[in-house]
Amino acid sequence: MKPPYNVDVDSLRESPTRAVNRIVERLKREGKDVIMLSTGEPGIPPPLEVRLWLSEALKEESMRLYSYTPSPGFLSLREAIVDDLKDIGGVDVSVDQVVVATGGQATMFSTLATILSPGDEVILMDPTYFGYWNLLSYFKAELKPIVASLDKGFQPDVEAIKESIVKGKTRAIIMVSPDNPTGRLLDLDVAKSLSEIAVDYGLWIVYDEPYKTLTYEGEHVYMYNLAPENTISLNAFSKDPGIPGWRLGYIYGPGWVMKKIALVSEAITYNPPSVAQHLVTVYLRNRELRKRHIEYARSVYMRRRDVMMEEVSKISGARYIKPGGAMFLMVDIKDIVEPLNVDCTLLTEKLLREKLVAVLPGEFFGKSTKNFIRLSFPTETPERIREGVKRLRELLEEIEEKENKGIKRSSLFEASL
Amino acid sequence: MKPPYNVDVDSLRESPTRAVNRIVERLKREGKDVIMLSTGEPGIPPPLEVRLWLSEALKEESMRLYSYTPSPGFLSLREAIVDDLKDIGGVDVSVDQVVVATGGQATMFSTLATILSPGDEVILMDPTYFGYWNLLSYFKAELKPIVASLDKGFQPDVEAIKESIVKGKTRAIIMVSPDNPTGRLLDLDVAKSLSEIAVDYGLWIVYDEPYKTLTYEGEHVYMYNLAPENTISLNAFSKDPGIPGWRLGYIYGPGWVMKKIALVSEAITYNPPSVAQHLVTVYLRNRELRKRHIEYARSVYMRRRDVMMEEVSKISGARYIKPGGAMFLMVDIKDIVEPLNVDCTLLTEKLLREKLVAVLPGEFFGKSTKNFIRLSFPTETPERIREGVKRLRELLEEIEEKENKGIKRSSLFEASL
Repeated sequence: MKPPYNVDVDSLRESPTRAVNRIVERLKREGKDVIMLSTGEPGIPPPLEVRLWLSEALKEESMRLYSYTPSPGFLSLREAIVDDLKDIGGVDVSVDQVVVATGGQATMFSTLATILSPGDEVILMDPTYFGYWNLLSYFKAELKPIVASLDKGFQPDVEAIKESIVKGKTRAIIMVSPDNPTGRLLDLDVAKSLSEIAVDYGLWIVYDEPYKTLTYEGEHVYMYNLAPENTISLNAFSKDPGIPGWRLGYIYGPGWVMKKIALVSEAITYNPPSVAQHLVTVYLRNRELRKRHIEYARSVYMRRRDVMMEEVSKISGARYIKPGGAMFLMVDIKDIVEPLNVDCTLLTEKLLREKLVAVLPGEFFGKSTKNFIRLSFPTETPERIREGVKRLRELLEEIEEKENKGIKRSSLFEASL
Repeated sequence: MKPPYNVDVDSLRESPTRAVNRIVERLKREGKDVIMLSTGEPGIPPPLEVRLWLSEALKEESMRLYSYTPSPGFLSLREAIVDDLKDIGGVDVSVDQVVVATGGQATMFSTLATILSPGDEVILMDPTYFGYWNLLSYFKAELKPIVASLDKGFQPDVEAIKESIVKGKTRAIIMVSPDNPTGRLLDLDVAKSLSEIAVDYGLWIVYDEPYKTLTYEGEHVYMYNLAPENTISLNAFSKDPGIPGWRLGYIYGPGWVMKKIALVSEAITYNPPSVAQHLVTVYLRNRELRKRHIEYARSVYMRRRDVMMEEVSKISGARYIKPGGAMFLMVDIKDIVEPLNVDCTLLTEKLLREKLVAVLPGEFFGKSTKNFIRLSFPTETPERIREGVKRLRELLEEIEEKENKGIKRSSLFEASL
């Protein structure tokens, strides 16, 4: 007799990028060279100094690097994070308010598991990082997407947010800054209004800031400084110092709720990976190296961003905002594709299969951006970014010429294990 | 206004070993040398060859070691696991049946989240690994502990298990082998009976086998071979090759349920840590090294086990079974402590604070073992194991002399962040 399972897990879907990655893998196995403008994966490994430190430590005949660690992370790492937050953001938290966790995804899971009950309403932006939809439906929360439009620089619409709040039902506002997929930095005025709303209505602000050190223009707003009793901040070391696969992040917020989040974090992975903790402790403790690496990463990514903007500007009809941070250009191509009746997701698929350029369709991030594509600039060299965007432009021109012949919906982007 | 949280998380408790570890940390900060007979932490790091491989790879100026990986793990690692299972256990599974996960705890969480619905009953042994209680109450399952007694070599009582099954309510049997905390290997006959029960009643067997290669006498039973449609096997690389802190494990079972488990695994940590995946792939792919390391670890741990047994045998009234595998001696000291009216948990606390020897009280593992203590032998050298057990014996003798004066219950073992 086949045993049953809990149908709640059927609300979970594979990340849509995984399907894109599988096509990329297949193309690569066929010997094809794909230009990757689809991932939020940094193109710069961690600083050589910290890698060499680890390289030496691996030679020791001891368990130092391999042992279990405290569930909320090594005390020394949490102390280093407290000092780092103070230094880069003027944030005052104690060690007890910091929980190191197993990557950005785990920071989201542990936090939402702690603060959400079934039926709670959660306000989030449209577009936003798609990783939230899955978790919110798994925790049986109701999503209240609020459109953040390109015309308003993708800033949250404070009035619309306020109107959508239902007292006693709305539990949290999820906000990403610097934003994925749009690259916008949250305006200080908007942040202040949001913090007031959160305090007035007793809402959580789940503030997702994995890109906080990757800013090119403008300042990153530390929401915790505005609403310390209502803000839970999610952080990752994936982008800086660049260890996405190693899975390390941290959460900070009011002490009482961090105690609970820590228990969920322990329940899912017992402790965050020790080897990543060691590496990041060395990185954060060397303040001069830390600052040098941030400046270096910023300069590399800013150059790539600028090249990308330059090339996208050659696509007649394409619109975007100059991203103040993060790793993405969210490009509105409605004026190009709508007259041709072209589906943007199919367009990205065609771009990948025929032109060997991977990008993500806007509908992965929200309904409001179904005529957008997200181009990411951290992974490839400036030359390859130029080439990738050029191929996109060529494809659009070809389609215009053919008046939208030959694009058929296929199941290639459907998720499967 | 302070925002609310989901009270379900209050069912989660910190691992009881964490409280012990905090006392150990405090003693160490005071400059004291604690003999660690309390942890399931291996005393042998991974083989030098694989560490040197990683040490070199860290010098590369590329993102190879740092990138995100597929959610169920690198294909090459899953292939290596398939080959390893075939080789060491005669287990036939396909790559699609293997999900690499972020450590043993994550294998438990993802599996239980997938197969359990609120109100389901779950049969588990008393004593058993305490990590399950927490998760089962979080998933609102009802625990049905079945006593596995020392007199029966800690083998599961098949008849008692059968009698406790409620059709339509009982969902799973959790079984650990080689066992934590008792070290017993599941008898083949018992395993066969359990597999028949599982098939007959449509139950899951959650088979937890992180110590499967650490056997000293007898053979490890691969339950999947007996009930492939009903067995979900949980595995970790924490003990072999010895990277507990790095968090890497894997799950295998029927393909249809592994697809669902994979989605939960992705939801909690996105992907298992890439650096650990790389290291373990190199380890498993080098079959000669793999076998040499297992033999080496076995011989080291067997020697430590034997020394521990020799010393414990000098404690008059102490009883235990010779552990066929794993890392522990589960010692019944009822005949010593009951006449003295001594609480075993307080005894372990006194042993730690006054004699600087860390062990775990039996009640951490079940009600039936409240007069037991668990001694673990993988971490310390034979000399220090001898010294540690000697101090335990001395403490028991001192208590007998004083007729149980001076032991007071304290809150030292209470959990707090």
